[in-house]
Amino acid sequence: MDAKTNKTIIVFSGDFDKVMAAFIIANGAAAMDDEVTMFFTFWGLNAIRRSKKVATSGKSPLQKAFAAMMPRGPGKLDLSHMNFAGVGPKLMKRMMRQHNVMPIEDLIASAQEQGIKMVACTMSMDIMGLRAEELIDGLEFAGVASYLGDADEANVNLFI
Amino acid sequence: MDAKTNKTIIVFSGDFDKVMAAFIIANGAAAMDDEVTMFFTFWGLNAIRRSKKVATSGKSPLQKAFAAMMPRGPGKLDLSHMNFAGVGPKLMKRMMRQHNVMPIEDLIASAQEQGIKMVACTMSMDIMGLRAEELIDGLEFAGVASYLGDADEANVNLFI
Amino acid sequence: MDAKTNKTIIVFSGDFDKVMAAFIIANGAAAMDDEVTMFFTFWGLNAIRRSKKVATSGKSPLQKAFAAMMPRGPGKLDLSHMNFAGVGPKLMKRMMRQHNVMPIEDLIASAQEQGIKMVACTMSMDIMGLRAEELIDGLEFAGVASYLGDADEANVNLFI
Repeated sequence: MDAKTNKTIIVFSGDFDKVMAAFIIANGAAAMDDEVTMFFTFWGLNAIRRSKKVATSGKSPLQKAFAAMMPRGPGKLDLSHMNFAGVGPKLMKRMMRQHNVMPIEDLIASAQEQGIKMVACTMSMDIMGLRAEELIDGLEFAGVASYLGDADEANVNLFI
Repeated sequence: MDAKTNKTIIVFSGDFDKVMAAFIIANGAAAMDDEVTMFFTFWGLNAIRRSKKVATSGKSPLQKAFAAMMPRGPGKLDLSHMNFAGVGPKLMKRMMRQHNVMPIEDLIASAQEQGIKMVACTMSMDIMGLRAEELIDGLEFAGVASYLGDADEANVNLFI
Repeated sequence: MDAKTNKTIIVFSGDFDKVMAAFIIANGAAAMDDEVTMFFTFWGLNAIRRSKKVATSGKSPLQKAFAAMMPRGPGKLDLSHMNFAGVGPKLMKRMMRQHNVMPIEDLIASAQEQGIKMVACTMSMDIMGLRAEELIDGLEFAGVASYLGDADEANVNLFI
């Protein structure tokens, strides 16, 4: 069979539940031996931020303020609904544990172990004032042309 | 012609307007003789809940609380914008009636009559504490691998 | 190579950031010589409204109210996150300018110059009480069957 089975997912959202869905689909496809590209853009970049503050130089005050207000890493993401000032994600995580659903940090690690290509959108990083050193290791850095190249080789392309 | 024309739609959102869009696309495709799979996950499960409360046993207090706070069925869904504490959906429904747009309940019935495969995501049901008997009849129950199998046979795959 | 490289994007959202993402992808694909269709539906229609109020006749009071409450054109769209009563989009636009990212108005003009097919969903226009004369020039007007026809000729189909 020579049909394409690659997958691409644009992770635009930084909501905990949507990022979860993205990683569950991506890991599922990788487990079926599909090549998978996750392209993190806009709020989705927050899912791949380091949880600790990283010193950076040369940011404008506006970039600093924006970066400071956005969540640092998967442990800080809000739910898209029923967030209740942070209680919602805690409850959902507890229910996930009770049903042996992998925590989001493990899903990210699994994605990297499975060789999923994780790309940070450089244009979004510029706009939102995020530097490469503020993001987790193992990422590639590229723009929309790179995404479109991967999407042209894939048979399932999602925007989340 | 042997090109694939199947369609899959992940219904992640439980917003009235997004669920409407999902069913309009799904019914449109089915009317053109495409095989269609709708995969309901996370908040999207609320669109296929029964409108009446169903007695269940063995739920944790957390699952009960979560299930109680989520809307029961398509008649209770919020708009993603301009919801105005429930007035928004009422106004939109009235405008839909005035322009002979099928109500959401009829779109769901039509989807089932047209043989659209409606799948409830079992992992999401676990996390959110929803049981099969709380959902409408005629559903299948499966996980991400099943979705990916259907998506590989389709030429249009949307995440809503 | 005879593989399909057309692209379709359903622009359901009227959020500034999501509409930006849609036009960046669409323009990127058009620059690579792909045929691109953007199908504006529900809140996405607000991105292609004229910025000035247009006199219309025959609208119901409900349609008038709905249309009055929705943003007029790309300059009035909210951010999906960190909107801060309109300050968020201003800050994001300033950061976009500082990094030479094309403003949304220019992205729309570029889309039209590149021959991207921009379609307004007639059913949504009816529901939301928007008339053709309230939308920008150069649009086509069609429904879901038209979208599905284009999607069947494309290899990347996104719902934003």
